[in-house]
Amino acid sequence: MSIPKTQKGVIFYESHGKLEYKDIPVPTPKANELLINVKYSGVCHTDLHAWHGDWPLPVKLPLVGGHEGAGVVVAMGENVKGWNIGDYAGIKWLNGSCMACEYCELGNESNCPHADLSGYTHDGSFQQYATADSVQAAHIPKGTDLAECAPVLCAGITVYKALKSANLSAGQWVAISGAAGGLGKEELFRSIGGEVFIDFTTEKDIVGAVIKATDGGAHGIINVSVSEAAIEASTRYCRANGTTVLVGMPAGAKCCSDVFNQVVKSISIVGSYVGNRADTREALTSSPEVWSSLQSRLSVCLPCQKFTKRWKRVKSSVDTLLTLLNKQISYDL
Amino acid sequence: MSIPKTQKGVIFYESHGKLEYKDIPVPTPKANELLINVKYSGVCHTDLHAWHGDWPLPVKLPLVGGHEGAGVVVAMGENVKGWNIGDYAGIKWLNGSCMACEYCELGNESNCPHADLSGYTHDGSFQQYATADSVQAAHIPKGTDLAECAPVLCAGITVYKALKSANLSAGQWVAISGAAGGLGKEELFRSIGGEVFIDFTTEKDIVGAVIKATDGGAHGIINVSVSEAAIEASTRYCRANGTTVLVGMPAGAKCCSDVFNQVVKSISIVGSYVGNRADTREALTSSPEVWSSLQSRLSVCLPCQKFTKRWKRVKSSVDTLLTLLNKQISYDL
Amino acid sequence: MSIPKTQKGVIFYESHGKLEYKDIPVPTPKANELLINVKYSGVCHTDLHAWHGDWPLPVKLPLVGGHEGAGVVVAMGENVKGWNIGDYAGIKWLNGSCMACEYCELGNESNCPHADLSGYTHDGSFQQYATADSVQAAHIPKGTDLAECAPVLCAGITVYKALKSANLSAGQWVAISGAAGGLGKEELFRSIGGEVFIDFTTEKDIVGAVIKATDGGAHGIINVSVSEAAIEASTRYCRANGTTVLVGMPAGAKCCSDVFNQVVKSISIVGSYVGNRADTREALTSSPEVWSSLQSRLSVCLPCQKFTKRWKRVKSSVDTLLTLLNKQISYDL
Amino acid sequence: MSIPKTQKGVIFYESHGKLEYKDIPVPTPKANELLINVKYSGVCHTDLHAWHGDWPLPVKLPLVGGHEGAGVVVAMGENVKGWNIGDYAGIKWLNGSCMACEYCELGNESNCPHADLSGYTHDGSFQQYATADSVQAAHIPKGTDLAECAPVLCAGITVYKALKSANLSAGQWVAISGAAGGLGKEELFRSIGGEVFIDFTTEKDIVGAVIKATDGGAHGIINVSVSEAAIEASTRYCRANGTTVLVGMPAGAKCCSDVFNQVVKSISIVGSYVGNRADTREALTSSPEVWSSLQSRLSVCLPCQKFTKRWKRVKSSVDTLLTLLNKQISYDL
Repeated sequence: MSIPKTQKGVIFYESHGKLEYKDIPVPTPKANELLINVKYSGVCHTDLHAWHGDWPLPVKLPLVGGHEGAGVVVAMGENVKGWNIGDYAGIKWLNGSCMACEYCELGNESNCPHADLSGYTHDGSFQQYATADSVQAAHIPKGTDLAECAPVLCAGITVYKALKSANLSAGQWVAISGAAGGLGKEELFRSIGGEVFIDFTTEKDIVGAVIKATDGGAHGIINVSVSEAAIEASTRYCRANGTTVLVGMPAGAKCCSDVFNQVVKSISIVGSYVGNRADTREALTSSPEVWSSLQSRLSVCLPCQKFTKRWKRVKSSVDTLLTLLNKQISYDL
Repeated sequence: MSIPKTQKGVIFYESHGKLEYKDIPVPTPKANELLINVKYSGVCHTDLHAWHGDWPLPVKLPLVGGHEGAGVVVAMGENVKGWNIGDYAGIKWLNGSCMACEYCELGNESNCPHADLSGYTHDGSFQQYATADSVQAAHIPKGTDLAECAPVLCAGITVYKALKSANLSAGQWVAISGAAGGLGKEELFRSIGGEVFIDFTTEKDIVGAVIKATDGGAHGIINVSVSEAAIEASTRYCRANGTTVLVGMPAGAKCCSDVFNQVVKSISIVGSYVGNRADTREALTSSPEVWSSLQSRLSVCLPCQKFTKRWKRVKSSVDTLLTLLNKQISYDL
Repeated sequence: MSIPKTQKGVIFYESHGKLEYKDIPVPTPKANELLINVKYSGVCHTDLHAWHGDWPLPVKLPLVGGHEGAGVVVAMGENVKGWNIGDYAGIKWLNGSCMACEYCELGNESNCPHADLSGYTHDGSFQQYATADSVQAAHIPKGTDLAECAPVLCAGITVYKALKSANLSAGQWVAISGAAGGLGKEELFRSIGGEVFIDFTTEKDIVGAVIKATDGGAHGIINVSVSEAAIEASTRYCRANGTTVLVGMPAGAKCCSDVFNQVVKSISIVGSYVGNRADTREALTSSPEVWSSLQSRLSVCLPCQKFTKRWKRVKSSVDTLLTLLNKQISYDL
Repeated sequence: MSIPKTQKGVIFYESHGKLEYKDIPVPTPKANELLINVKYSGVCHTDLHAWHGDWPLPVKLPLVGGHEGAGVVVAMGENVKGWNIGDYAGIKWLNGSCMACEYCELGNESNCPHADLSGYTHDGSFQQYATADSVQAAHIPKGTDLAECAPVLCAGITVYKALKSANLSAGQWVAISGAAGGLGKEELFRSIGGEVFIDFTTEKDIVGAVIKATDGGAHGIINVSVSEAAIEASTRYCRANGTTVLVGMPAGAKCCSDVFNQVVKSISIVGSYVGNRADTREALTSSPEVWSSLQSRLSVCLPCQKFTKRWKRVKSSVDTLLTLLNKQISYDL
């Protein structure tokens, strides 16, 4: 397979600058890196933060964004082990880490102080050919639909890991706060096995409703909502010895828990941040049955209106990216 | 051994009523209960709440308080297994639980909805002869100094369990927020192996000081302080993937954590409430070496002034109880 | 509901003595016990050992056997908590335990030295009214089909716990050695989601076949087969870091593992014995979906001919019991 | 610091060939490797197997042996992260692994099919300058005595990990089968806190003696003995729900466990193979207090005569290596 010298990519040169869809050089993989021909890329809310430069962590400039890229290995550095040309590979948020610090050693690579981030500190998946550290790149099984796989590489892994962090046993209740997204589509929720749908736009007592539906409170809660009030409520409808998992990150939000309640009920509030290599493999290879089993009795749905509004506000920015990306993707296929 | 019909005890008939030191009947153990001749009893802050009746959970009336009682089994009901007359036994906060609900099944007996509480819903250790459910009563090894053992039955188990809840590995840092109690005695802290003492009365930047001393943040934090600000600070000097354990319960306090920080650092905030039967056995049979190993590198001490003041305010009430109890104990020995 | 003084039951007065189906007294529950009107009872291989008296542990005599009884609570002792008249209750192998020893404290009640065994040291479920300790008796949800539930109370819990003991993650392979029972019915295996069926009567290289099918060995193995050779083979087709679980107990069998292989592959060989109260609740309340998810990729089936032969040998004895029981059941409904 | 072109090393060109102490080239580190100036090296029994070529896994030839090397980083490849020139670094048995396979992902790097082994498939620590993968190389804290540290890099990590694999709680009993080595020196055992010493040369009933000393059996057992009989005995004096850990690997040995006993007691037999990066860090940074706490109540010692004899037989071969190494070490300091 011949690798071109230049390629199409979406690049910007300064924060919030113009997103240029143009010819850029194909990068050369380092000794430890894969060169991946990107077939599909998802777009994530974080891509907007990278573009706007509004997070405390500085981005590289110029930058090619994107951290949900699914493609094919076309070249690799001399020290790469365990990969072959033609393998399917995924570009995740964590492009590479040192693997030698106390966080990496314990499988907490996302917390590595040397973390290299796709589409943030390392050019990402909004180009036809991107590089990724061979240790962190996701192994995508042969036969996977790469278009369906792409968003799993960030959103999918994150939710999968959050479900694991909730530490659930068979038959327990998990509440997904914000499960219906901005549109509150109960049909979607039901179609994937949801049992109880609680609509915050009509239910006045969310806490009471969850406790009643679950006969004492949810054993695990996944907060994908970005409403601060919804997060706080989860600490009150959490069952004794249960776990509420923080995933969504509303800007500047606090999670405030009543100390007396949390101690006497022995409740855990756990932050969950993307996932590690093992979580990635599991998320990518699991059948829908495994996912739904992890979710135990997928259950209480708390649609989050605030998220809806926010989403609409940012949607036009995302559309800009998507429009450009669609061009790229159409080229690439 | 002959068991008398009446005994000395400290009893009150209404909330905040007179504490009467008088002759009361010796209780008869139920089929599942031990009758314990109490030799020593600790006094806990909770005893004041029971007396004042200022907690949402109602107390039985009249009430004999006390839940840190160490003594000797003198009689038992017909269904008791695993105990012999003459065994040392301890009366804990959790006098008995149903053992059959979903909480009991998993060893979370403290969360049992049928929990029977010593010195609260069940006459406690401020009498010469008290009853205790034989399943929950603490097995105290022969040869134990009962006077030293008594306070371990509540405060000791609670701190022991909190250290376990911090989920520490060998060589990791644990910070005890409030370790020096109200008086901030560094000598005590040093004498039990503390490495770094940080005095909040002189240190302006507690968070920075802990992060510096531990080279990145404490892996585990035990919040025995009852300062809301100190609890909140613990969420900021907690190391990535670390755990801050809530133990102290300042009235009406909230633990507020920055969501972005907690997610990106994957931090856990865990409520820990007394301990179960296994924790009790371990706390009572462990040598000081085991305790200090559990505490890994016992370390950062954050004395809490607010607690000091509060303690002084309530001390006179406790003195009332202690005065009466000393009488009882002198009788009993 | 009026409780009669006498009832029908199957009783024997000496080991291997006549199984008499006759009128016997209805037992009176102790303070901690339930009186259960048995609606259905399973029959287990162990019932034969109890009758033959061929195990090292002595049985009570005379004895009413049976430890898979599903029925309704009709009376209870004075100290029982958490049960109501009319609740569905199950009689398990472990009728009661002390709940206070080091094994009970950690949820390993099956290992309690004071264990009281249904149909062995305590009259069991082959009678219309049986007693069971209220802590150990199984809570059967309302609406459960009691006839289907009965065998789950022993065989079901045991296999469920074994699957938990295999410590599997999503997407991993579990091999059930002996899954097709004596008859080797592949259809049954396929109907519950089995992916790969390996028939030991035709496959010469079982170890190689499993390793090939699972691309490196099974992550977990459940040995329900009672062939010593099949158990030994499981230590060779176990994946590195995997677990082979011992469940079936062929008389006098050894599990022999190559030390070099076990160390270098870091393999665990784990004995699993019935299940505790939490396992019981989970097994009884789990939907088929949960079961199949626990089994990850339910997979390799190794039918066991030896077991088939053995089963035929004992079948006539079991038929004796079943005939008598059918009578009882018809009475009882 | 200037790095020479040639160095002193111990090398052999064919299996069981002459061990030549001579000038050889200094290796050049790959992109992911450190170049370590070896200050001290331990010698392990495995070095003899590498030299004799009597294990099924083929060695590289010619070969420089050694996998317990402690030294100083003097150069590194372009992709190395988290290391500085002058850092102390250790060369372990596992020189490098792929970090991307299912074993590496879960921290089971020792089981990686791409494992590169020091002094076996990669030139090891019996030379002045050796290369090591920067991810697997051990971080040795500043101030460590490198001479004392060297043997910890294999034997120390292995025993540390085995103690972790025994899954002990505070106050439990651990038996070290073979703790007194070939010489059965009780003094050494006592000096590190051993409580009960059982000498197999005089005790006829080892199983009974351990069960008596531990009041029911050891909660954990570490089999460093290489006697097959001693390993088998450990399955009989293991406490219910306990764990016996296999570490020593007598040639061709089997660990045979009685299935009935293992199931009814729910015993685990676990293979433990060296340790991963986190185990290495913990073993190297732990104080003696931490080690002794890990060992709970370090306890029953079963000296192993067979090992003694074997050791004497191989000692002369080891002496050959040691003699040559002492030369190297004297040069190097």
